[in-house]
Amino acid sequence: MNLPRLLLRYRALIIEGLTRALHGESSLHAILRYHVGLEDRQGEAIEGVGKLLRPSLVLFVVEELRGDVEKALPGALSIELTHNFSLIHDDIEDCDLVRRGRPTVWSLYGVKQGINAGDLMQTVAMSQALIAGRAEASALSEATAEMIEGQGLDLQFEEEEIGIARYLEMVDKKTGALIRCAFRLGALLAGASPILEETLMAIGQELGRAFQIRDDLLGIWGDGVQTGKPQGSDIRQKKKTLPIAVAFARAVGEECAILRQIYGKAELTDTDVGRVIVVLEKLGAKDVGEKMVADHLSHADDKLRNVPLSVRGKEEVNELIDYLARRER
Amino acid sequence: MNLPRLLLRYRALIIEGLTRALHGESSLHAILRYHVGLEDRQGEAIEGVGKLLRPSLVLFVVEELRGDVEKALPGALSIELTHNFSLIHDDIEDCDLVRRGRPTVWSLYGVKQGINAGDLMQTVAMSQALIAGRAEASALSEATAEMIEGQGLDLQFEEEEIGIARYLEMVDKKTGALIRCAFRLGALLAGASPILEETLMAIGQELGRAFQIRDDLLGIWGDGVQTGKPQGSDIRQKKKTLPIAVAFARAVGEECAILRQIYGKAELTDTDVGRVIVVLEKLGAKDVGEKMVADHLSHADDKLRNVPLSVRGKEEVNELIDYLARRER
Repeated sequence: MNLPRLLLRYRALIIEGLTRALHGESSLHAILRYHVGLEDRQGEAIEGVGKLLRPSLVLFVVEELRGDVEKALPGALSIELTHNFSLIHDDIEDCDLVRRGRPTVWSLYGVKQGINAGDLMQTVAMSQALIAGRAEASALSEATAEMIEGQGLDLQFEEEEIGIARYLEMVDKKTGALIRCAFRLGALLAGASPILEETLMAIGQELGRAFQIRDDLLGIWGDGVQTGKPQGSDIRQKKKTLPIAVAFARAVGEECAILRQIYGKAELTDTDVGRVIVVLEKLGAKDVGEKMVADHLSHADDKLRNVPLSVRGKEEVNELIDYLARRER
Repeated sequence: MNLPRLLLRYRALIIEGLTRALHGESSLHAILRYHVGLEDRQGEAIEGVGKLLRPSLVLFVVEELRGDVEKALPGALSIELTHNFSLIHDDIEDCDLVRRGRPTVWSLYGVKQGINAGDLMQTVAMSQALIAGRAEASALSEATAEMIEGQGLDLQFEEEEIGIARYLEMVDKKTGALIRCAFRLGALLAGASPILEETLMAIGQELGRAFQIRDDLLGIWGDGVQTGKPQGSDIRQKKKTLPIAVAFARAVGEECAILRQIYGKAELTDTDVGRVIVVLEKLGAKDVGEKMVADHLSHADDKLRNVPLSVRGKEEVNELIDYLARRER
């Protein structure tokens, strides 16, 4: 599945910006360039950069609202860098060995330098936001705090039984905060009205939910080769992803007993993971997830009517929404 | 040894500010309040806040340059919060169990939430700097990046033999960056001239070196009860503190062989630590350290002549310098 035009249009510009933002001679800077996929371990240039969803959204909003795309670049970069800071630390917290098909930072350079690398990435992100301006930096700072709180909840939920409401609370922070912020920065950088800014953030919230739920589904039913991370690892870590939250909400009798028994264990085996997937399928958790993705994308689409998009802009958003619903990685 | 007046004058104001900056209902916010010493684990108020050197320096500079101390508070807090963010992550990286006489965050809440707590502290720090202004936030952002690079070097040096020059390079980043920034923020917040700002930063650099070298000496020859951290732990972790850098620079023959043999080991025993201390003493590393502390404080004192201090201000600085030279914790 090819990337939609909206994610291709600004790609070269963003990659150029990332290269500039992450220049620097320290060995930590080299680790940052490795992480985002600009360089391999030997410092040779590679084409390993991810989808760039968040900065592309910033620049798309700016362009549609007739702002200056080039000038908006630092703000767009600040979101992508913040996202990457969180990924470096998340990979440590989740003990993930692979990210975008390449070894994670901590698995190559150790947990200690991994912590430092993430810290530096957060700082570089903020320095880009400060180039954009004080209001932009404040928006990013708020969103970052929310994202970290969401990450805290995600960890906390590994030990708790949660329902769909708490799941969404966590996702609105962990994933939603940055995607909302992408829309907010776009609005700020284009000088949009506060009302339009709020509408755009509401769209970001819907897309954030759709994006994360799709991610959760791919983590269980996706192709590990395509997603770039091992299948079932979320379940093994007792992550309360959407299908699990659905299952806990729906399970009675035997299924409930199985889930309780497995999630009561300190460590899950491959067999446990397999049994959980059987229960999820029996309880229709995958279908619920797919329906939720479609619903949130459709809410986003409704709200988009209140945004003055160009004809091309509308087409490209539709393409993006379609992509988010079906993406396999 | 009592705290000097300069560290007492603004203490109540800073603690009040920290309490406000770290309010928040999430469990991560409670961890932040625990870490800085505002609350115990149960959320009860305690008096456990550290020396508050950095924010006190900011406010002192502001007051001496006739700026508005109350208005300068967010800037001062931003430095203290950044310092505390680095401590939470440092404690993880150094596997330290005790900080200021209390269990470290990661030892109570786990490494994962420790990473998140440090991340959130960095974000809260930046949000305070943004209240101060864009120039102040940019200054903090630069200093934070330098500090993290210094922390990266500190880790890297665990595996390298380094001399005094590289030690100072690391200290000027790891410790110096924030202390220089304290003086810089003071200058910015009081609207000082660029020349005065530079003079103040140069003073910060000298104080930073004196402060860190004293810290290194206390880590080996200090009283673990007073310093709040176990004696010899720096050596056990193969940290290249000043006495070790001196020893590697001076050792020949037998002492050189002993150091090489011990530092070539994967893990150091208590006996190894004892043997290293004997070598340090034989090579006069403690005396060199004490002389360097005195020299850097004296350089700071010289440069202070170019700062228009009040009579009281001059007295209080002298008292602080005297304290930094002799402090036992």
